[in-house]
Order: sequence, then C-alpha cells, then structure tokens
Amino acid sequence: MAKHISSKPHKPKKHAAEKPSRAADQLRIALVGMGTVGTSVAKILCQSSDGPLRLTHILDRDDSKRQTSWVPKNIRWAESFDEVLASDVDVVVELIGGLEPAADWIRKALLAAKSVVTANKMVIAESGADLQELAREMGQRIEFGASVAGGIPVIIGIQEGLAGDRLHEIAGILNGTCNYVLTRMEANGVGFQEALKEAQKLGFAEADPSADVEGFDARAKLVILTQAGLRTQVRTEQILCRPISLIEAVDFMYAHDLDCTIRQISLARKEASNGMFLFAAVQPALIPLSSLMAHVERNKNMVVVSGEFSEQTVFSGYGAGGDPTAVAVVSDLYSIARGAGAPQPGLSAGLEVPETVSGEFTVPHYLRFVVKDRPGIIAAVGTVLSRFGISIDAVFQKPGYGHTALPFVMTLETCSSAVLNRALEEIASLDFHVQAPLCLPILRV
Amino acid sequence: MAKHISSKPHKPKKHAAEKPSRAADQLRIALVGMGTVGTSVAKILCQSSDGPLRLTHILDRDDSKRQTSWVPKNIRWAESFDEVLASDVDVVVELIGGLEPAADWIRKALLAAKSVVTANKMVIAESGADLQELAREMGQRIEFGASVAGGIPVIIGIQEGLAGDRLHEIAGILNGTCNYVLTRMEANGVGFQEALKEAQKLGFAEADPSADVEGFDARAKLVILTQAGLRTQVRTEQILCRPISLIEAVDFMYAHDLDCTIRQISLARKEASNGMFLFAAVQPALIPLSSLMAHVERNKNMVVVSGEFSEQTVFSGYGAGGDPTAVAVVSDLYSIARGAGAPQPGLSAGLEVPETVSGEFTVPHYLRFVVKDRPGIIAAVGTVLSRFGISIDAVFQKPGYGHTALPFVMTLETCSSAVLNRALEEIASLDFHVQAPLCLPILRV
Repeated sequence: MAKHISSKPHKPKKHAAEKPSRAADQLRIALVGMGTVGTSVAKILCQSSDGPLRLTHILDRDDSKRQTSWVPKNIRWAESFDEVLASDVDVVVELIGGLEPAADWIRKALLAAKSVVTANKMVIAESGADLQELAREMGQRIEFGASVAGGIPVIIGIQEGLAGDRLHEIAGILNGTCNYVLTRMEANGVGFQEALKEAQKLGFAEADPSADVEGFDARAKLVILTQAGLRTQVRTEQILCRPISLIEAVDFMYAHDLDCTIRQISLARKEASNGMFLFAAVQPALIPLSSLMAHVERNKNMVVVSGEFSEQTVFSGYGAGGDPTAVAVVSDLYSIARGAGAPQPGLSAGLEVPETVSGEFTVPHYLRFVVKDRPGIIAAVGTVLSRFGISIDAVFQKPGYGHTALPFVMTLETCSSAVLNRALEEIASLDFHVQAPLCLPILRV
Repeated sequence: MAKHISSKPHKPKKHAAEKPSRAADQLRIALVGMGTVGTSVAKILCQSSDGPLRLTHILDRDDSKRQTSWVPKNIRWAESFDEVLASDVDVVVELIGGLEPAADWIRKALLAAKSVVTANKMVIAESGADLQELAREMGQRIEFGASVAGGIPVIIGIQEGLAGDRLHEIAGILNGTCNYVLTRMEANGVGFQEALKEAQKLGFAEADPSADVEGFDARAKLVILTQAGLRTQVRTEQILCRPISLIEAVDFMYAHDLDCTIRQISLARKEASNGMFLFAAVQPALIPLSSLMAHVERNKNMVVVSGEFSEQTVFSGYGAGGDPTAVAVVSDLYSIARGAGAPQPGLSAGLEVPETVSGEFTVPHYLRFVVKDRPGIIAAVGTVLSRFGISIDAVFQKPGYGHTALPFVMTLETCSSAVLNRALEEIASLDFHVQAPLCLPILRV
C-alpha cells in the first residue's frame, strides 16, 4: 500500500514530535459534527482503530457530547475549527451540513493541506467542481460519496465502475421522505397530508418537510450525479422542481389502471443536437410497474444510469440514516488511506457546460381533472389540445363520484411539456374545474 | 494523475526505442481474444485512443480477424502469446475464457511485470487469491470486474464503495440464461423445455445449456463475490448447485398464490458461532414478489449485499453481452491507468477460511408433489414430517387436474433443509408419487 503521507510534500509536520504513538501508515482523522451520521462514523472508526484509519479529533458545538462514554480518552475534543486546522490530522470529515460555515471550513481544510470527506450535498452541488480543483492544486483529495444516496456506492460506481462507458441519462428516486409518503399513499389509499403526518410521526419526514416535498433536496443530489456521471455542469437553480403534494389518492387508482405508479423522479438526460442540451427535472411522474423504480420500498433510494455500452445499470439501498451514510464516509476514508489518486473521468472527458437546461420533456402525459360535471367537458378539453397539436391517447372515468366534484383522467400521446403547459393554461381558464388540473409526465425509466 | 509508469520499476523497456510515438502517460494494452467481448473492447479503445489507454497489440487464433477493417493499421497482430510477453505492453487483457491456457497466460503476464485485466470467472474463481498475491509481489495489478455480472460495477462497489462496512450476505441473480428461461415460463405459462428452446433460438442460451441450468456458471461468480465481499475463501466444489430444470409451469401458479415467484438464486451467508460458517448454494428458490429480485427482467442480473451498517445494497443491469462486459474491462483499464493501488479490504480485513461450508439453509420451504390421488396422502406426508419435527404451514391444491397425476403443494415452517432432505427420502419411498417431489427453499432476499 502506498503510504498516504508520501503524496503530501507540503504537509506541515509540526506536531509529529508530540505524538510518538502515531503509526506511520495510519490516516489521522478529525470528525467535525457529531450528529446522527457523525456518531455512526465515530463508532465505526473507534471499532477499527487498529486499521489504517485513526480518529484523533472531534469537534462539535454541543459541549455535552464530550460526555459520550464510548469515545476513548485519547481522542481530543477540539475547541474550535482553527484548532483542527492547526492540528496534524490528515483528513477532515465535515458533517455539520448546510452551506456555511461548512463550505468555508472545507476550503480552509484543503488550503491547510488536509484532505476532506463530506456528506454535504448543498456544498458539493454549489461548488463541488471548484473544491475538486482546489484539492488538486493542493495535492489533496475531496470525497463526497455520502452526499448522494447515503450508503449506496453510486458515485464510485459511475465514476470508476462505469468509467469505460459514456453515460447519457441518470434517473433516480433520490429522496426517501417522498418515496415513503408516496408508497404509503399507494398502499393505504390515503391522501398526501395523512401519509405525510405518518411519515413525520415515524421520523421519515421533518417538521418542515418543504425541502423534501418540493424537490429541493433531490435536486441538489441530481446536480452532483449529473456532474459525476454525465460530466455536465449545471447550477441548482437551473433544474425545475415540482412538488409531490399535488398527488391525491385517486391518482394512484388511475395510475394502476395504466399499469403504472407515481414516484418523485429526478431525471437528467443529455442530448446532442446543435450543441448539448440537458433535460433535467425533479417531479412526481407516472412510471411503469415493470420498472424496478416502482418497487423501491419505503424510504429507500434508487439510481438508474444509462450508457452507450452498458445500457441500464441500477444502484439501490438506504439513501439516508446514520449508519448507511457513515459507510459511505468511512469507505471514502479507506480510499484516501489507499493513497489512490482522485477519481478521474474515463471515456467521458472534462466537464461540459450545456447550451440549454430545460425541464420540459417530450413524453406521454397524464392529465387529471376534477370538474363540476356537465355535457361537453371532454370535447372542450379535446378542442384546446387539438389546437396545440396534442393527441389524446385515452380517457378514463371511474364510477362512484358525485357530479359536483368528478375526477377523470386523460392520457396524451408523446408531446412537449412546454407546449402542453400552454394548452393547459387555456384549459385551466374553462369554467368547469373544481380544482386545477394535474399534469404528470409518464416516464419510461 | 500519477503516471502508471513510475510505479513499475522492474518493467523491461527494451522496445521503447522502436516506438517513438509512445506518449509517456499512455497505458499500452494487448488484447488477447477477439470474441464478442474482445471486439467490443477493441472498438471502445480504438474510439478513445487519445486518452490514457492505447491498444497496441491484438492476439487471436483466428487469422481471419486480421481483416477487421476498423482496426487501425498501427495495431500489431501478434503471432503468439510469447510475442505479447516480449512486447512493451503494460497490460494484458485476457478474454480467451476457459481455464487453460488462460490461467497460465495470466501468470506469465504477471511474471513478465505486466498488469492483467480479465473477464475470466473460471480462472478467478479457481485461483484469484493466488493471482492477486502474485500481482502484489510483482508490483502489478490484476483486475476482474468483468468476471461477475458483466457491466454491473459490483466488484468495485463492494470492495471500495462499501469498504466501510462488514458484509455478511451476498444474494444474486447471476445467470442471465436462467433468469430469461424462468421469467418466460412465468409470463407465458410454458414448461421448462419450451422456454429453454425459445432462449436458445434468441441466443440467450447455448446449445449445451448445462453450465447455466445446473448452476455451475453462477457458482463461479458466487465464489468470486464471496471472496471480494465477504472476504471468505471458498472452493467452487464446496458450493451446492441444484438445477432449474425441475421447475414446472404449475410451480409458478402456486408461487404466485404465495405472493412469490421462482428464480435461480445464488446465496452466500457468513455466520459466526463456534467458528465461521459459510452457507452457500446456487438453486431455484421461491422469493417474495415484494423483493427487487422478483422484478429482474429477461437476461439481466442483480446482486444484493447485506452489511452490518448499510443494510441492503442492490446492483443490477446487464450481466453479460459484449458491450456491457467491455465497459467493465475498460473501466478496469482506466483504474490501472490512474495508477491507483489495488483495492484493499476496508473494515473486513484479510481472507478467512470457513470452518464449514454448507448448502443447507434453515428457512421455510415449498414442497410440490404430483400424485396418483387416493385418500390419506396428506396424512401420510404429514406423519413423516412431524416425526422429523417439521411443521406444515399450509396445503394448497388447485382444481382442474385428473386423479392420475394430481399436483399439490405444501409450505413448511422454518426448518433445516438437511433434516427436511432426510424426511423427503422417506416420503419419496411412499407409493403414490407420479414424479419425485420438488423441494424449494423460500428465501427472504
């Protein structure tokens, strides 16, 4: 094994004399943030202290954590991040979350010639490329396998395991909260609010669930996957998000009739035609029951990547939680301990910047209306759609609903969702709606 | 990027002067075997010759391959493996398959200070550990990501992506032919022979399908996964194989009634109790429809690994075929080009040798009988089972069959398959059987 130390010519050695117990080939680690993931990381590292990884410092703003009985006495509880920076640790594990001060601390750690392992999706989505460049300049590593899909080794899987392919699409269930809520709605026939309350009670959703429900959490992960897998740089705010809160129990009934179900799908697809286009969105969508994604249970995650040669490759497992996420952190630490170079793109070379980023897919669509029934409604909707060149595939109307709030569903043949949205604006202004029409793409993921 | 060349002090440089066009950081590659996978590898390498990988030699016993029009003129068609050994290539890609001469050639390549990339499951299952040791001694790499599950990055996923976990179980659908045959039987209600013939016609099964049907192909892959993921050394012949040819259309009907389906499942489970036990088998089994494995389509593969911290992680995709397997080969070449060290186990340290290897699982079971009907059959079977301490969970008998060959099914509560097999020997000797009883484990994978 190449000793990690040999690749770090600029590393300050000032503390070496004070630490005679240091094994030459052990990686000295500072853990910053002792929350759920940090606690799991500390436990794993304390259990395996005779290996190449050695936890030497912990920093947490909550002083009561210092009482944690299983933390060995020879681990130093740092007073400040400056103390961590001034120490002789080789790697800083950043697990405080949020944009600041995390981004600032990561930058400072790299500038102090320390490698960084982080689970921080916000920082990596925002400035992952810059931080990787800084790490390269400093001869250090920054690893973020834990920032997407927790314990599922998807970053290394696509960057290294599929280095020999050119990937063009990444689709995923990247938010466990949404998957939990939608699968409960499906299984129990309950509404969104009821399923969300259950998820909150069980700890699968936060008190303020908006980052999950609106798609912002999944979006940050999609940005990171798009960069790692499609070698394409996209900014968070360029990606369209639609909330899952618009879905109702009746939509699952109609979806099943179409041999489909409904999930929050994060999708990024690269297409070359007069420059490179990136189609990217996080939204609820109909997906076929024959898709593996339809069978992702509870709060698990799944990522499906499509490449020129490997076709579809699937990764799935627990995308969150202390222990699974800690596995990703510790695996990144082992990778640094091996002294391997930073992962490099294979067939797909440097990062591209797309000409256009669009959330409008050209796919079949599902439309659900709730109307005050009277003759001529389907004809009125059909007239507008046909004016926009959109063909109706089928119309479904289940019995058993009153005339004052009657749900019915249309499926549309493949059309651009941009064109469809213009048609829907007109349709929404018609006088028979009891609530706004719901429009979902039907994705063959 | 660390230059590959710098880590190879013993490398003979005798040809360097003759090849002035050599870029210092390009990895020179000899491709040995231009079959389906070899052709895909050559195509990918020829498309990306400006990157770190450079195909310089091809060896194939079929001289007509030299006419391949898209192979550039500056690639040397070697006359013999000795010529490859004597050349200045950095890496030998072995794609001839079979045990010999492949194993001998791989050994010779390593001894000649060349790294090796192979898709050869037989060689790696037989002597992977020895070859890795030899590679280490020679300062070279041997990579075999393509030997299991084709394009699915499962070896790197478990060895590096899950290095921070201790894995205790690997379950998989590792043979695309069997999965194709079983999914066709299920979808079309046809028998084994008819589904096999269709698979042969479509190229999903070989003329002699026994290595697939009997489980030997999957077994070699399970040996490799057991070593890479469970860090446990097991010999091929220690793993029990049962053929899928015993399954009939009626078994799928009963399986569905039990919310299950039937697949060829490769399973290895490590248990510690008075020494380390390895339970390992390749066999047809009932699995719940709620399992992702029940939804693996056609000839795809899936591997599910279970660890102490990450719980279950799933990898799926195309496990065979030229292009997907080539992706694994080329990805391994990129890994060598990066100059990374060989993958090292993380939390799970060196290879263990199990005290006992057993194919007998303690699980619920499915028994299917075909009998000449008369009163007292279920009582007779029940009497034997109860004498062995085995409890019946339920009995199912579908209408519509004649009395001369009546199928019925029993499910059994959790019991050791070793004990059950002894009971079944007695039951088989009873006089009402039209064919031998079928016994399948019900696995919660």
